Amino acid sequence: MFAEKYADRVEFLTPSSIRKMMAIAKELVAHGKTVYELNIGQPDIECIPEFCEAIEKKAKTGQLNYSPYVGEKYLRETYARYLNNFFDRRSKAHLVIDTENVLVTVGASHALTSTFLTVCNPGDEVLTIEPYFSPYKGFLAIAGGTLKAIPTRAEDNFALPSAEEMEKLITPKTRAIIFNSPNNPSGHIYNAKEVECLARLCIKHNLFLISDEVYREMTIGDQEAFSVLQLDLGDEEMNEKLKNALIVIDSASKTFSLCGVRIGFVISRQPILEKIGLVVAHTTACVSDIMQYGVAGAYDAILSRPDYLENMRSVYRERLEETMRAISEYLPDVVAPKPDGAFYIMIKFPEFEDITEFCHFMLEKFNLGGETVAVTPAGGFYLTRDRGRNEIRIALVVSPEKMRRSIQIIAEALKAFRQFKVNLVRPML
Amino acid sequence: MFAEKYADRVEFLTPSSIRKMMAIAKELVAHGKTVYELNIGQPDIECIPEFCEAIEKKAKTGQLNYSPYVGEKYLRETYARYLNNFFDRRSKAHLVIDTENVLVTVGASHALTSTFLTVCNPGDEVLTIEPYFSPYKGFLAIAGGTLKAIPTRAEDNFALPSAEEMEKLITPKTRAIIFNSPNNPSGHIYNAKEVECLARLCIKHNLFLISDEVYREMTIGDQEAFSVLQLDLGDEEMNEKLKNALIVIDSASKTFSLCGVRIGFVISRQPILEKIGLVVAHTTACVSDIMQYGVAGAYDAILSRPDYLENMRSVYRERLEETMRAISEYLPDVVAPKPDGAFYIMIKFPEFEDITEFCHFMLEKFNLGGETVAVTPAGGFYLTRDRGRNEIRIALVVSPEKMRRSIQIIAEALKAFRQFKVNLVRPML
Repeated sequence: MFAEKYADRVEFLTPSSIRKMMAIAKELVAHGKTVYELNIGQPDIECIPEFCEAIEKKAKTGQLNYSPYVGEKYLRETYARYLNNFFDRRSKAHLVIDTENVLVTVGASHALTSTFLTVCNPGDEVLTIEPYFSPYKGFLAIAGGTLKAIPTRAEDNFALPSAEEMEKLITPKTRAIIFNSPNNPSGHIYNAKEVECLARLCIKHNLFLISDEVYREMTIGDQEAFSVLQLDLGDEEMNEKLKNALIVIDSASKTFSLCGVRIGFVISRQPILEKIGLVVAHTTACVSDIMQYGVAGAYDAILSRPDYLENMRSVYRERLEETMRAISEYLPDVVAPKPDGAFYIMIKFPEFEDITEFCHFMLEKFNLGGETVAVTPAGGFYLTRDRGRNEIRIALVVSPEKMRRSIQIIAEALKAFRQFKVNLVRPML
Repeated sequence: MFAEKYADRVEFLTPSSIRKMMAIAKELVAHGKTVYELNIGQPDIECIPEFCEAIEKKAKTGQLNYSPYVGEKYLRETYARYLNNFFDRRSKAHLVIDTENVLVTVGASHALTSTFLTVCNPGDEVLTIEPYFSPYKGFLAIAGGTLKAIPTRAEDNFALPSAEEMEKLITPKTRAIIFNSPNNPSGHIYNAKEVECLARLCIKHNLFLISDEVYREMTIGDQEAFSVLQLDLGDEEMNEKLKNALIVIDSASKTFSLCGVRIGFVISRQPILEKIGLVVAHTTACVSDIMQYGVAGAYDAILSRPDYLENMRSVYRERLEETMRAISEYLPDVVAPKPDGAFYIMIKFPEFEDITEFCHFMLEKFNLGGETVAVTPAGGFYLTRDRGRNEIRIALVVSPEKMRRSIQIIAEALKAFRQFKVNLVRPML
């Protein structure tokens, strides 16, 4: 039978829990239900207008052409200027990025898959800080690799284990450490000391350090994000080794509310960047030229008006504050650490062993005045068995009023769910 | 050292000869040289206007969102209608395609890589008809697979070897046969009998038949293309097996002069299509929603005005006729079979052993009144050692006048190259 002839790697691929909830929510919305879709990090904020202007200008030429596989030079130049300016604005020392250090991909997903395909043979291992962005596991499975967890806990403010503890997780098969800061889902920002610890570990064991910085601009607490590009290890030789180990991932999706544009970046040194570029050439040939012109327009715009991103941060801060207030009013028994970055809140419900059934109940069987909420059960953000099973992740992707309403709906759904479970048991008496 | 730590698969990846010539040509154009870029299949024809209208409408909403990983339902529906209509217009019996049989990808390249990642483990083999579209080799290398040739010859009008001969190439590692018709680079169209022979071979040996039909609409001779979707093997059981074996690849790039849009398709049956979809989900997450809306607008447009594609074919036919005339005038010693489909001509120069040096000489060291021509040396279109080394591929991507001028430039460059070689030898005397 043909069914037996699939490649081994596809056996490890399943739709992520984020995507599963998205499909159900879309179906319900299509049938007229009002669903606050807090299950996916897709902001309701209008995309930056300069993007639209740039693509309309390109469309008017009537010419949509193949791009070089490393990306359009104009976008690579503009992105390099943006990144250097990002650190300069904050008067931070940093590794200066040139156009030749920038590769354009089909979103951060493609940047990550292409990187894994370049550094991992089947059977190789990559370490990640848990809780982690759940799609990493599948991206790595495409290359035949296995993801392993460096566990951290909300109770310890997500502090990293000691270097010695982390070292025990490294095997001859380990090729890289990947982490994202600000972290999705926890919202935690790793500080300079922690990032330096990871970098020294990678240099010592000849690993790549893959730093996923798609939420770089999304700092919604008091703490600024610390990029691996700001590291200075104190002597020239170590800094050279550092530059050879670094692979930074970025994306236009969150920065400009452009999830549907599918433009991401890998920032690294030659020759590794050329190798990742060849994987891009042999997976998608190149990236849409018109989307690249649009995104170049967007980065160009924020270089002249940095208040654009400051305003966006204010929008998320307001949502965060109102949501935290609503949680303490409506959900007094949960544990919900306030995030410093990204735009998610992880909420732990101590009364549950596994919250998945409740999430489906709330979405599919419950409504409050015709409205309900889609959330993501958080088990998928952990590799360690049984971790995160009583947690959910919500995204701050609707207005403060709607965030408050969503928390109220979750509270009411909890009451209804408890009653639903009691009723299920009663006929047994 | 880090350089030793790349995955084995990237060792097999090099920029294709098409892309190498493109990079050099772009650099020369940037420095003011006029180059007729016949090295890449990127038409100069303006893209279909309904595409631009559709993306402007979408951009005006200010919302660019994540798409389902199988693609936007609206595009999948529209494409299925287009494909069924394509056969109906010609009153051809065909396998009816439903929305659920259509998966959207980042161009045909991504459709092919995702397919290979789904059906091939490292070490597996895929057969292709030689001359073949050179990037197949690298797409398959991403999955760790090896491409093997079914050789055909211009002298035999690219006739397939007998089923018995082809069977000798099948090993326990063989997973699929891939072919494209109309063929890039040869322009050959495989007839119903040949396609049926391939299909029966695949069914007998439990292989997938991957049919790359991106040039379906590009018939520029008298012969119509024959799609695997038109096959009828005569009895129900065989037709069921056929449906389970078929994977069709398509793209919007050539049909609408939209190479820069990066929208392709996989057309197949469940459950294989769901598996390929999961590879899409784990390589690019999804495809740009705004590009999908644009392409849906394009397919929708040609459903109501099929003359659009007929006019495009006329444009290519005119270019082909003029180019064939110019070849017989200026290049009397070459062998250049007239293609039936796609928009390329393969030209053999019997005087050469290896034509690569001449191609570089013409592009980089020669000009006729400030103008020159970029062509692709054809060795990369063959897997068999030493085949195609004295051939080039040119694409019919400029006006008839410019095609004629290009052939004249090639003829003059040949004379100059012969002199250049003589001069190189002279100092040795």
